[in-house]
Amino acid sequence: MIKHDLYNDDLINICKTAGYPELKDLSEEIRDFLIEKVSKTGGHIASNLGIVELSIALMRVFDTPKDKIIYDVGHQSYVHKILTGRASGFDTLRQYKGLSGFPKSRESAHDAYETGHSSTSVSAAYGMAIARDLAGDDYNVTAVIGDGSFTSGIVYEALNNIGDHQTNINIILNDNGMSIAHNVGALHKYLNRVRASRTYDAAKLSVKSALGNVPVVGRPLSRSLKNSKEKLKYSVLNDEAHLIEDLGIRYFGPVDGYDIPGMVEIIKAASEYEGPTLIHVITKKGKGYHWAEMYPRKFHGISAFDPETGEVISKGGTSYSKVFGDKLTELSLRDDKIVAVAAAMGTATGLLPFYEACEERYFDVGIAEEHAVVFAAGLAKTGYKPVVAIYSSFLQRAIDYIIEDVALQDLHVVFAVDRAGLVGADGETHHGMFDLSYLGMIPGMTVLAPADGNQLAEMLEFSINMDGPVAVRYPRGSCEGDHLRLPRFKGSNNLLSEGRDVMILAVGSMLDESLKAAELLRADGFDIGIINVAVVKPLDTSWGDLDTKLAVTVEDNVLSGGFGESFTAGYNDASYDVLNIAIPDIFVEHGDIPSLRKECGMDAESIADRIKTALADK
Amino acid sequence: MIKHDLYNDDLINICKTAGYPELKDLSEEIRDFLIEKVSKTGGHIASNLGIVELSIALMRVFDTPKDKIIYDVGHQSYVHKILTGRASGFDTLRQYKGLSGFPKSRESAHDAYETGHSSTSVSAAYGMAIARDLAGDDYNVTAVIGDGSFTSGIVYEALNNIGDHQTNINIILNDNGMSIAHNVGALHKYLNRVRASRTYDAAKLSVKSALGNVPVVGRPLSRSLKNSKEKLKYSVLNDEAHLIEDLGIRYFGPVDGYDIPGMVEIIKAASEYEGPTLIHVITKKGKGYHWAEMYPRKFHGISAFDPETGEVISKGGTSYSKVFGDKLTELSLRDDKIVAVAAAMGTATGLLPFYEACEERYFDVGIAEEHAVVFAAGLAKTGYKPVVAIYSSFLQRAIDYIIEDVALQDLHVVFAVDRAGLVGADGETHHGMFDLSYLGMIPGMTVLAPADGNQLAEMLEFSINMDGPVAVRYPRGSCEGDHLRLPRFKGSNNLLSEGRDVMILAVGSMLDESLKAAELLRADGFDIGIINVAVVKPLDTSWGDLDTKLAVTVEDNVLSGGFGESFTAGYNDASYDVLNIAIPDIFVEHGDIPSLRKECGMDAESIADRIKTALADK
Repeated sequence: MIKHDLYNDDLINICKTAGYPELKDLSEEIRDFLIEKVSKTGGHIASNLGIVELSIALMRVFDTPKDKIIYDVGHQSYVHKILTGRASGFDTLRQYKGLSGFPKSRESAHDAYETGHSSTSVSAAYGMAIARDLAGDDYNVTAVIGDGSFTSGIVYEALNNIGDHQTNINIILNDNGMSIAHNVGALHKYLNRVRASRTYDAAKLSVKSALGNVPVVGRPLSRSLKNSKEKLKYSVLNDEAHLIEDLGIRYFGPVDGYDIPGMVEIIKAASEYEGPTLIHVITKKGKGYHWAEMYPRKFHGISAFDPETGEVISKGGTSYSKVFGDKLTELSLRDDKIVAVAAAMGTATGLLPFYEACEERYFDVGIAEEHAVVFAAGLAKTGYKPVVAIYSSFLQRAIDYIIEDVALQDLHVVFAVDRAGLVGADGETHHGMFDLSYLGMIPGMTVLAPADGNQLAEMLEFSINMDGPVAVRYPRGSCEGDHLRLPRFKGSNNLLSEGRDVMILAVGSMLDESLKAAELLRADGFDIGIINVAVVKPLDTSWGDLDTKLAVTVEDNVLSGGFGESFTAGYNDASYDVLNIAIPDIFVEHGDIPSLRKECGMDAESIADRIKTALADK
Repeated sequence: MIKHDLYNDDLINICKTAGYPELKDLSEEIRDFLIEKVSKTGGHIASNLGIVELSIALMRVFDTPKDKIIYDVGHQSYVHKILTGRASGFDTLRQYKGLSGFPKSRESAHDAYETGHSSTSVSAAYGMAIARDLAGDDYNVTAVIGDGSFTSGIVYEALNNIGDHQTNINIILNDNGMSIAHNVGALHKYLNRVRASRTYDAAKLSVKSALGNVPVVGRPLSRSLKNSKEKLKYSVLNDEAHLIEDLGIRYFGPVDGYDIPGMVEIIKAASEYEGPTLIHVITKKGKGYHWAEMYPRKFHGISAFDPETGEVISKGGTSYSKVFGDKLTELSLRDDKIVAVAAAMGTATGLLPFYEACEERYFDVGIAEEHAVVFAAGLAKTGYKPVVAIYSSFLQRAIDYIIEDVALQDLHVVFAVDRAGLVGADGETHHGMFDLSYLGMIPGMTVLAPADGNQLAEMLEFSINMDGPVAVRYPRGSCEGDHLRLPRFKGSNNLLSEGRDVMILAVGSMLDESLKAAELLRADGFDIGIINVAVVKPLDTSWGDLDTKLAVTVEDNVLSGGFGESFTAGYNDASYDVLNIAIPDIFVEHGDIPSLRKECGMDAESIADRIKTALADK
């Protein structure tokens, strides 16, 4: 067995030239590497273990960066990163200034397109293919997309265009039979039927004679063979494939995702076919790692873990998500009008207890945030109380529906906006830094932000018992239990202390840093007050005559459209000066929260320094 | 022939009890009524003419408001409004304080769900059906949705859930073979095949003996017959229907949309089927009115017209959309990297000349704003210059993709944001009153707003020649040519006049009202200056030392996150006071623009009054 040096070998060349047995060895080495590295840093491990061989097969057939491979959602691009010379980055994976957990063009020209939110790869591939055609260029464009991502409507919008246009695009359907948790919907059942109906499985048998170990170099010359029966043998052979074929996409498959020569042959055939193709590859999440195969949900995105036992090393404290899920379950047992709606993130948003207690009122709609919101609007219009739990950055997909379907009809839908603010390791695409803006602009919307777990629980109950649309936004990670000992939430803000020099208005969980900043400033002799801003919208009407020189807003949202601007414009006539502290007008990278807050000027020391500067400027 | 009194007759009862020949007569009377009324007020005429008989058939089978009928997109609910006692409202259709052009629950309990943006009906129906099931109720839920709306991905997200869940929902596919303009995509071709393959057309033959003129009262009792072959005779008989059936939806059809007894029989059969159904109804836009059948695109949404000649009575001046389309065409003839992307509104956004001049670079993706933006990102990533023309309120659907796919990758995509600000007769769902907020919050985004047509043309050229994401937002309707004689746009704002008392900062097309307000104030002896705010983002850095007492921002966007808040927070330390004039935190109804501006306190007189009040308060 050849042992490869993943750090220094030219792995692209090895993918292209090595014999298949060697590539199988390489797969196992990469698998071991992934388990070793990700167990230390944390990351998306299960999906990457599932597509080691597929990533290698793609490298054998295609010539990146000339050919474009787009990894949908992107957290399964680790193998691609290793193959394209980035193995050394895995010691700093997802850490501040370290390797990103998602495709980034700034890291490598082999990352053709940046992803993070799911289901965009097919549309982006269509754009690239059209650009290629308009320019008269000749390269392959391939989207690698999971069956979970296929539940999102934009894929269908793209297929509708691609099937019509009939240009050359390869769509690799990485079918592991589950989304992040389990897959939902009719499509899932349909794919099961397609798999079960497999009538042609000759890849393993025929490939050795057809291609053997002959390297595939450059783009195949055989476009002229495009319509030969030989090249079409994989398609139309599946009786159940007509859902795809009806849309004008030629179906190839299914093929075993651990059969490298089989995949190479079928991907090559598809890439030579004139027109759009879908290549159905059957994979398994967590493949080759016992614990990840057994618990793919747990190992989807995971913190550092013990590779021997599969146990997460440090779990941190109670999370906001858990507080939310437990409280919602408690309330739902008393109120049978409450319905929970998740969009593929039911477990991550804490809804498992609800599912176990009230299964008939639990709906995971798949990666389908738009539909989740309108579905909830339909429920609310008919007398139910839907609680929609979606990450802040993913809820960005449903803004139009929150406006038009929920708020315009003044429907009582509760939005549990999880992962608001900076989220840390997932980085740029996942920070929830716009929700105060996009929710705040909507007429009739109430926006609440808890500072700790107790307040979240109280707000949730308050929200469920009010009318109209309401959002509760709270951060990723551990809440601080009841350590803050805030007054019980009754729908208003809390003045925690007066301050003649400065009054800090701290939104939600930014209260912690703000309290620390206040202590630093008090040590310098300033008189600092604090308001726990729990109600972001509507704007509190009582702040016109704060007895202070400087009011300071602190929020983990961009300045534009956030609480700070709303406060400043609302109290423009007040006697005090105003300083707004918020996420600056940039995309914030991945890393630990303290580093990111420091970079954004939002950690306690930066807050204190900025306040001192503002006071000195007066 | 029985002549009905559309104003006073109990049309619901007539639908339920009358013989079919009488209902055919009623259809024609309604058609004449629609042409007469809408020719005076303007409105969505073609789609309503197409579904007169279908609306009647639905009323015969279902008992609203107990049964729920959701008209997707909603502009085709005129017949439903007439049938449910609102004929007298048609003299004020779409006028200020008059009948809405869309379903509104406040108008009638028969409007089960409010729509305006397309493709939400299936998700909403799913929510209502689940609410019904949870409550143990027993009524029908029916979505009426056009084939154009089927190009939007949310429909597919909903079908994926409905096909899985298998509860009772009826989806009426109103297939008129075109979206607003022409239909696009593989689905359209597929539906053509389904229509062509029609193998069963017995409705016309069998219905008279099966149901004859026996009225269908209340909910059919025949759930017990649900699985009988008799009831299933419409389904699975179409060889091409498997795209729908693969998703777990039972297909019924196709049926002629002008055959009332046939539709009644098939809808009844579908409503009695246990599980979700799709009923494929073939209609024709503009049916029964010569000019609308001939020019369905023109008669989709139209101003007042001469019913004899089909000519629009008053066309108004040159529209911003036309200026955009003409300028883009001119630029594209010189720059072959420019690509135009439309989302079913190519003609309405002025792109017809571009299509005629550069067809190979024109892409109408259907009602698929999300895909449109990611498709554009793919084009931009590969060296092209996509210009995406979408209405402000519809672009709300693509915010996540503008953030994640375009701005995060700093791609040079130009957004032509048409129908920004108040749009008038289309009302609540169509006002473009959030774009400055949702675009302004995005890091790296440039936001421009022209004050007249010349400035739009200059801005478009400027935008195409810059880098990174940029949006140009401009209103519906006529621009004022070059009457303002603004300085040539070179990427900055224009100080039009100094004002010691007041400096009005007027965003884009609000310059007109602001100039008028300035004249009113000057007549009262105030010294009023004006700045033409052409660049909304980034915030101009030169306004710190304006020599004025009061700075007044004027914009046709909500206050939250708009220009005014940005200005106020940005110049919080300046010596002048600030007054923000913007759309208040409400949903603004339909009506003529002057009335709506007055209601919002944004017409010239209101602006002048509010400024005087602010000056007096100092």
